[in-house]
Amino acid sequence: MFNKEYVFEEILPFFKNLNEEEKNELISKSSVTKYEKGEIVHSKNSTCTGLLLTLSGNFRVFISAPSGRQITLFKLYDRDVCMLSASCAFANLTYDVNLEAQTKAEAIIIDSSLLKKLASSNFQVMNYLLNLTQDKLSEVMYVLEQATFFSLDERITNYLLEQSRFLDSSILYITHESIANELGSSREVISRILKRFEKDGKIHVSRGKIEIINL
Amino acid sequence: MFNKEYVFEEILPFFKNLNEEEKNELISKSSVTKYEKGEIVHSKNSTCTGLLLTLSGNFRVFISAPSGRQITLFKLYDRDVCMLSASCAFANLTYDVNLEAQTKAEAIIIDSSLLKKLASSNFQVMNYLLNLTQDKLSEVMYVLEQATFFSLDERITNYLLEQSRFLDSSILYITHESIANELGSSREVISRILKRFEKDGKIHVSRGKIEIINL
Repeated sequence: MFNKEYVFEEILPFFKNLNEEEKNELISKSSVTKYEKGEIVHSKNSTCTGLLLTLSGNFRVFISAPSGRQITLFKLYDRDVCMLSASCAFANLTYDVNLEAQTKAEAIIIDSSLLKKLASSNFQVMNYLLNLTQDKLSEVMYVLEQATFFSLDERITNYLLEQSRFLDSSILYITHESIANELGSSREVISRILKRFEKDGKIHVSRGKIEIINL
Repeated sequence: MFNKEYVFEEILPFFKNLNEEEKNELISKSSVTKYEKGEIVHSKNSTCTGLLLTLSGNFRVFISAPSGRQITLFKLYDRDVCMLSASCAFANLTYDVNLEAQTKAEAIIIDSSLLKKLASSNFQVMNYLLNLTQDKLSEVMYVLEQATFFSLDERITNYLLEQSRFLDSSILYITHESIANELGSSREVISRILKRFEKDGKIHVSRGKIEIINL
């Protein structure tokens, strides 16, 4: 079982600046939630979820089209924080995103209205939220750059190499669908390019598995 | 000639909360600058420019690739504010953008280090910057959505219709190059699609001019 106070002290730089009452409110108005692999934590159709602090597992933040197509904005790993799931608390966050657990995972959710209240009365909280938002703005501009200026060939190559480095393995257990959702493309297009990569001797493709040969 | 104090009172919601010393510093550490059409105000290679407050004319904020390709993030009109040109003052704004005057234009530039100083001591300034950043994050996510999920045909159509509404005219004096830079594409691709639109009777294309017939 996680001790919330300990986690807050570790992850939230403003926690030590809160007074006792605020600390207690933060502890009482937050909840530890467990998620199954693939579970949607927050969607653009949800009511307000709240600020997410990850405790274990990985999460993916993405935008989606009515057609079902998706593109990943960023991932969350252990001890990451996501404020986009608390967008209802901020009038200027008008674009809503989706958040899903990519593995079995656990997170603390902090109530949005409490977050808003703390931000409006506490300089450190406001400063922290500004840093978080600037950070995410930079990441989203990077995703836009990649999606706009790089060919899908290059982006698939980079994605596979990144995954390989991250998992320290040349064998990746991923579906063509998940690559499509990562990069904002369709399964058919990804499959066609992977087939060409295989023909060129760069990878070996089998069901749910891609082996990197010479990318 | 613009009276800076008057402009600050009008545009910056935090100005009235500054003390006299801060107000005077803001007035003395800001400068009114004139720009010619097409002039680069800030680029990702510039040293720090500062917070931009537009006085007249239009500006375009965009990202660019080494290949020269560009995509517009948003436009600035009269009495708009852009903090991305003050990114040097904020450690978490790691992605730098370009800013150009689209018409003859005028703006007030506020010194970045003063902005940082005011933000770090004044809650209202910090709050204002959080709102600005959240606003821009929402806009950039919208651009990413458009660029990822919509076909170039749809995006060109929307762009021409928007311009037509904005200028209240069915005749647009724009080059294929400028449409390409707007949408993150290349001139060749844009020209090909416009030619097809013309063949389909949707528009009439001539040098530097597009007439909307039936889009």
